Amino acid sequence: MLLARMGTESSGLSFEQIAAARERIAGKVSVTPVHTSTTLDEKADAKLYFKCENFQKCGAFKARGATNAVFALSTTQAQRGVATHSSGNHAAALARAAALRAIPAYIVMPENTPRAKRANVERFGAKVTYCAPTLAARERAARELIEATGATLVHPYDDLAVMAGQGTCALEFLGQVPELDVILTPVGGGGLVSGTAVAAKSLRNRIRIIGVEPAGADDAARSFRAGRLFPSEHPNTIADGLRGALSERTFTEIRRRVDDIVTVSEEAIIGAMRELWEVLKIVVEPSGAVAYAALREPRESWRGRRIGIVLTGGNLDLDRLPWMGSADEQREPERELRRARE
Amino acid sequence: MLLARMGTESSGLSFEQIAAARERIAGKVSVTPVHTSTTLDEKADAKLYFKCENFQKCGAFKARGATNAVFALSTTQAQRGVATHSSGNHAAALARAAALRAIPAYIVMPENTPRAKRANVERFGAKVTYCAPTLAARERAARELIEATGATLVHPYDDLAVMAGQGTCALEFLGQVPELDVILTPVGGGGLVSGTAVAAKSLRNRIRIIGVEPAGADDAARSFRAGRLFPSEHPNTIADGLRGALSERTFTEIRRRVDDIVTVSEEAIIGAMRELWEVLKIVVEPSGAVAYAALREPRESWRGRRIGIVLTGGNLDLDRLPWMGSADEQREPERELRRARE
Repeated sequence: MLLARMGTESSGLSFEQIAAARERIAGKVSVTPVHTSTTLDEKADAKLYFKCENFQKCGAFKARGATNAVFALSTTQAQRGVATHSSGNHAAALARAAALRAIPAYIVMPENTPRAKRANVERFGAKVTYCAPTLAARERAARELIEATGATLVHPYDDLAVMAGQGTCALEFLGQVPELDVILTPVGGGGLVSGTAVAAKSLRNRIRIIGVEPAGADDAARSFRAGRLFPSEHPNTIADGLRGALSERTFTEIRRRVDDIVTVSEEAIIGAMRELWEVLKIVVEPSGAVAYAALREPRESWRGRRIGIVLTGGNLDLDRLPWMGSADEQREPERELRRARE
Repeated sequence: MLLARMGTESSGLSFEQIAAARERIAGKVSVTPVHTSTTLDEKADAKLYFKCENFQKCGAFKARGATNAVFALSTTQAQRGVATHSSGNHAAALARAAALRAIPAYIVMPENTPRAKRANVERFGAKVTYCAPTLAARERAARELIEATGATLVHPYDDLAVMAGQGTCALEFLGQVPELDVILTPVGGGGLVSGTAVAAKSLRNRIRIIGVEPAGADDAARSFRAGRLFPSEHPNTIADGLRGALSERTFTEIRRRVDDIVTVSEEAIIGAMRELWEVLKIVVEPSGAVAYAALREPRESWRGRRIGIVLTGGNLDLDRLPWMGSADEQREPERELRRARE
């Protein structure tokens, strides 16, 4: 279905598709700001530029790809609506984009989806179907929905229109900071990093594009090194947006254009997230802090460079912050201090 | 000493002083962005503009006043340095401004000041003197320091140069959003609200300036209503930046130009802070969320208006967030959920 829709499979993702996406979504998503920090620059011994997609509509860059996919549909296709199975940022972004075009959105979610994430989708009037919390059940429910409604599946990343939409972030970033030497983005399914690579290398051929992945969900790093696609096996990371696996389509783009994929520990992700909150004063979710996590272990090759870092999203449960730890751990320093004063 | 320094006491704070402050501090502090949110606009039934002083240098608007005061000194005065007694945002801002001018900063802090706040001041090379944690001890220590060094006291708000610096925030805000109908700022010692009122009413005489104060530290609201200055009595609020009391100088400006001072509950402050984090994806400290707290109880007179809200700062301890509550409360929902599933 996607092949039929895009009709450009063999040639992959092009700069023209990304440029067209930018025109298509202009005014429908936010132009996000770039923040800088002398404190973090000094620490990294480089000049850092943070692209704040946590300020994007729906709180994540996913608004770009979903909006492009929805507005790229023909009128006839659009009338039948769009569908996806996801409980995360893509679902909310697709629901919002469908509402903007006044077409139906059908979202399949596992029945154990947290209330906050359900609310994020339902507020845009999407029709939500709940299913058992397995990938098989989700795919089956989505297939049935699509057969019944004729809706178009908009996959969170295995879709050229979505990839092109995500690529608009790099286009915008280089418009704001043309002299970037490197861009770091997180890697989950690979939609953002491939869109970024196509957009950025078309504008500035010597720029380096580096994907960053949690070590606990390193299918992309392993696939990149081996030159063949490994499936994702038991991903285990706090970065819940990055548990997905590459598709053939995103892997092809990554092999063509991405310079490296590096991994970071859970500890580095949490430390990076907290440092961004403390120093930049912005709320970034764990997945959104992954690219910066790579920079906390300085590399010779990054010294003095102009490094762009995509902070991909800011949606998380403020009652469950990763540094809260157990209640006892949390209160220990206070208790120690009290003891010391007595 | 301050009278001698400014020499304009009788006439109070003028627009010219604020305009001069803007020139003086340009390039030395940040031009902070204005954020908006369709979600919060819908909720408030008004158009809201958030001035993000949490992104200011040192994480708070205090950088404006301190920088203006330091750079307004004559060369001779400056060489002897500046001093203040404070453990909060003003101390860090003064230390930074002194470092920029390469002059000494002497900061008196109570010996129980949290490590993070000490570090904020020490990183700029300020000379810190610790004293007993009482106002009398702080004032005595500061007086002794000033006698010994000849440093100039830069009070956190009872100082025309500081008030003029804080006024640059409104000047900048109206440059970014000229059509504001109302500006809401928090009130502690009154430096920001008076600077805001002088700046904004000079540019736009029908604009309304409203100060917002925690109900637990309502000396300004009581003084405003009574028309005479009440001291601050046992301030008790999570908004630690707003526990100070008005001075004669700030009260005079407030009576002349501020339209109203309203109070908000602790619950409203915490709710406002959390909502700003969740929706705007920015880190705002409790004091910084106080102005927005007033808007969460909609008023007829604000409906449909263009309302500017100054988010004054973003410095706080991420291990002690006010909604964390006790560990047991915090984990209760999780436990219930587990029980329900069993």
